[in-house]
Amino acid sequence: MTLTSAAELDASDPLATFRDKFVLDGDVHAYLDGNSLGRPVKASADQLSKFVTGEWGGRLIRGWDERWYELPLTVGDKIGRSCLGAAPGQVFVGDSTTVILYKLIRSAVDARPGRREIVVDTDNFPTDRFILQGIAAECGMTLRWVRPASDAGVTAAQVAEVVGDDTALVVLSHVAYRSGYLADAPAITAIAHAAGALVLWDLCHSVGSVPVELDEWGIDLAAGCTYKYLNGGPGSPAFGYVRADHQGTMRQPIQGWMGTNQPFEMGPEYEPHEGIRRFISGTPAIGGMLAMQGMLDLIEQAGIDQIRAKSALLTAFAVELVDELLVPLGAVLASPRDPALRGSHVTVDHDAFADIMAPLWAAGIIPDFRRPNGLRLGLSPLTTSFSELQVGVEAIERELRAATSPAR
Amino acid sequence: MTLTSAAELDASDPLATFRDKFVLDGDVHAYLDGNSLGRPVKASADQLSKFVTGEWGGRLIRGWDERWYELPLTVGDKIGRSCLGAAPGQVFVGDSTTVILYKLIRSAVDARPGRREIVVDTDNFPTDRFILQGIAAECGMTLRWVRPASDAGVTAAQVAEVVGDDTALVVLSHVAYRSGYLADAPAITAIAHAAGALVLWDLCHSVGSVPVELDEWGIDLAAGCTYKYLNGGPGSPAFGYVRADHQGTMRQPIQGWMGTNQPFEMGPEYEPHEGIRRFISGTPAIGGMLAMQGMLDLIEQAGIDQIRAKSALLTAFAVELVDELLVPLGAVLASPRDPALRGSHVTVDHDAFADIMAPLWAAGIIPDFRRPNGLRLGLSPLTTSFSELQVGVEAIERELRAATSPAR
Repeated sequence: MTLTSAAELDASDPLATFRDKFVLDGDVHAYLDGNSLGRPVKASADQLSKFVTGEWGGRLIRGWDERWYELPLTVGDKIGRSCLGAAPGQVFVGDSTTVILYKLIRSAVDARPGRREIVVDTDNFPTDRFILQGIAAECGMTLRWVRPASDAGVTAAQVAEVVGDDTALVVLSHVAYRSGYLADAPAITAIAHAAGALVLWDLCHSVGSVPVELDEWGIDLAAGCTYKYLNGGPGSPAFGYVRADHQGTMRQPIQGWMGTNQPFEMGPEYEPHEGIRRFISGTPAIGGMLAMQGMLDLIEQAGIDQIRAKSALLTAFAVELVDELLVPLGAVLASPRDPALRGSHVTVDHDAFADIMAPLWAAGIIPDFRRPNGLRLGLSPLTTSFSELQVGVEAIERELRAATSPAR
Repeated sequence: MTLTSAAELDASDPLATFRDKFVLDGDVHAYLDGNSLGRPVKASADQLSKFVTGEWGGRLIRGWDERWYELPLTVGDKIGRSCLGAAPGQVFVGDSTTVILYKLIRSAVDARPGRREIVVDTDNFPTDRFILQGIAAECGMTLRWVRPASDAGVTAAQVAEVVGDDTALVVLSHVAYRSGYLADAPAITAIAHAAGALVLWDLCHSVGSVPVELDEWGIDLAAGCTYKYLNGGPGSPAFGYVRADHQGTMRQPIQGWMGTNQPFEMGPEYEPHEGIRRFISGTPAIGGMLAMQGMLDLIEQAGIDQIRAKSALLTAFAVELVDELLVPLGAVLASPRDPALRGSHVTVDHDAFADIMAPLWAAGIIPDFRRPNGLRLGLSPLTTSFSELQVGVEAIERELRAATSPAR
């Protein structure tokens, strides 16, 4: 393998030109953390500037009547259409992923009265686990923990073992944040439903990189963030999905004015909107929804299946590079070898990785690190080039070699 | 009274030059809704644009280590210092006001076990009332409603009548969103404390326009938004205050990774940060905190006492204009006549106001409307000029006269 092969892969990449749509800083030589924070779409800087002077500064409070009030739902529909296989009226944008998880999990627990267990896996993202620990304590629920094998994710068989008459809800990540393992969402959902339980999928690491078919799979609830593969910027608001037929009966606990039928009526009693709006609580972040819209346009142009195809090639190339350059130095691949079983990032373990992150970042080589010893290569299909990936892994090899050489 | 007097007031206004620091759209002839959405600071457009290309696009994920992780607390401290009389380490920024109210109210209820009542007033902002209705239902609490007189706000005597051994918490707005009535926060707080209850003040309509001394007054909890007099932009993140000595014992229900001691440790159990950070849940909106910082700088330059002095002159001038121009047409002042008893907006009631809002807004005259019949003149001391206010009320008079003339 040589740099030529990366160049060839780039030359034959049908999505290669999308890279020009993004801000590419000259001091960043390999950005391999698009799964933590996506690069900005180039047009975003101008759009935000125009938003401040024109829409906010010019329309002022009138902006709420003209566009902003509906924005959490119109942007939600756009995410649903381009990435989630969700018909309109089921996705809202607002709050952080953590707050949306809290609202949806509480809604689900109330919707399954009498059932006292929630199924979750030990490899799920900390905020999912922490939120569940809090809700379990306050609602008197028991958490049933699934423990994925060290080189895999949650399997349908594991879920089948623990779900039952007492299961209210199953909360899993579609793509595991550390290993990148891609769960079999349709099969696991069917198993949960057969037991009478609801399912909530955390889509943070799949939305925008792995096709999701929420409606077709019969998913009840989902949530995800927009600053990873949707490039909404640091702390951009998250999204939540509630299947249409659940909306009329589910109630979320953070009863705010923006979730009512007529927020400007200022009436005495909280009356939730009949549709997806009832899951909105307070005033949504309008500026925070701007950048992601440019990215959603690019995703629609490219098509999520094309994006997935490039993602699979990128992660396959990453595995090749890891095998050739890092495994000989003692690194261990911590992601599935089968591209069908992984999302858009590849994780490698080595005890020396913690020490080489600072020099790599300072040199403009930016992978991600997950304690205690995992280096993640996050590959964002519309922005990561094969050459950039190779430059990055070669730099990691040099640093790792220096850090592990006997002379040191 | 003539336009000359407005010009004279502007000429002798020591804060008049601050107006030039804001985006002033030529098609907006009178913006009288700064208490709903403040105008952008002029520098914000450039700052946001540079943020996208430089800090987000250039530093990428490294931004979290460099500045973003601490931003909810550094900006919180800045709000505390410039507007709230709060020593560092007690204010955080993030979420919507609604979500912060939920977290703080739940924390307070848990901190007063055995007490089953929460005191709130019927004129409080809808989201405060709705949140409380939800929490009362889920926690088995009873709401004790204080009913302010139609021309006033909640008084200390009214609160004294209802607080007692069973009161866990008193939740009131410092400045009432409709009438502009300014509550006697120190006296009411002392009354609540004497009964062993906690107090939570909603500061949405006071922060940035009315001096607040949270530490001196011994306030337990407070929350407020940043898009009114802090000019953070539509949906900019809210702030919460938790008095230092409560932080170690209070726990909030939305246990997210950003509220732990070491969020990047990804440990198995939620362990809340020992300080104010424990009230943060998910990833905070970094872009949403930029615009308000420029405004906080201006507030520090002007000084909150100077701002309050101009606010009192503005509302006094508004009352004069209302008396001269609108009362003869049947309008009724719905705000206190004593400037010491009101915040920075003045509300007038007339049944025809609902009909004249659309033509006013279309003509670039922008007051606010609150059902069923209230027109609010929101006066933002660093951006509203006396002439602008007069232009606005004169236009309202013309529209009201046309709408109520017998010929119509």
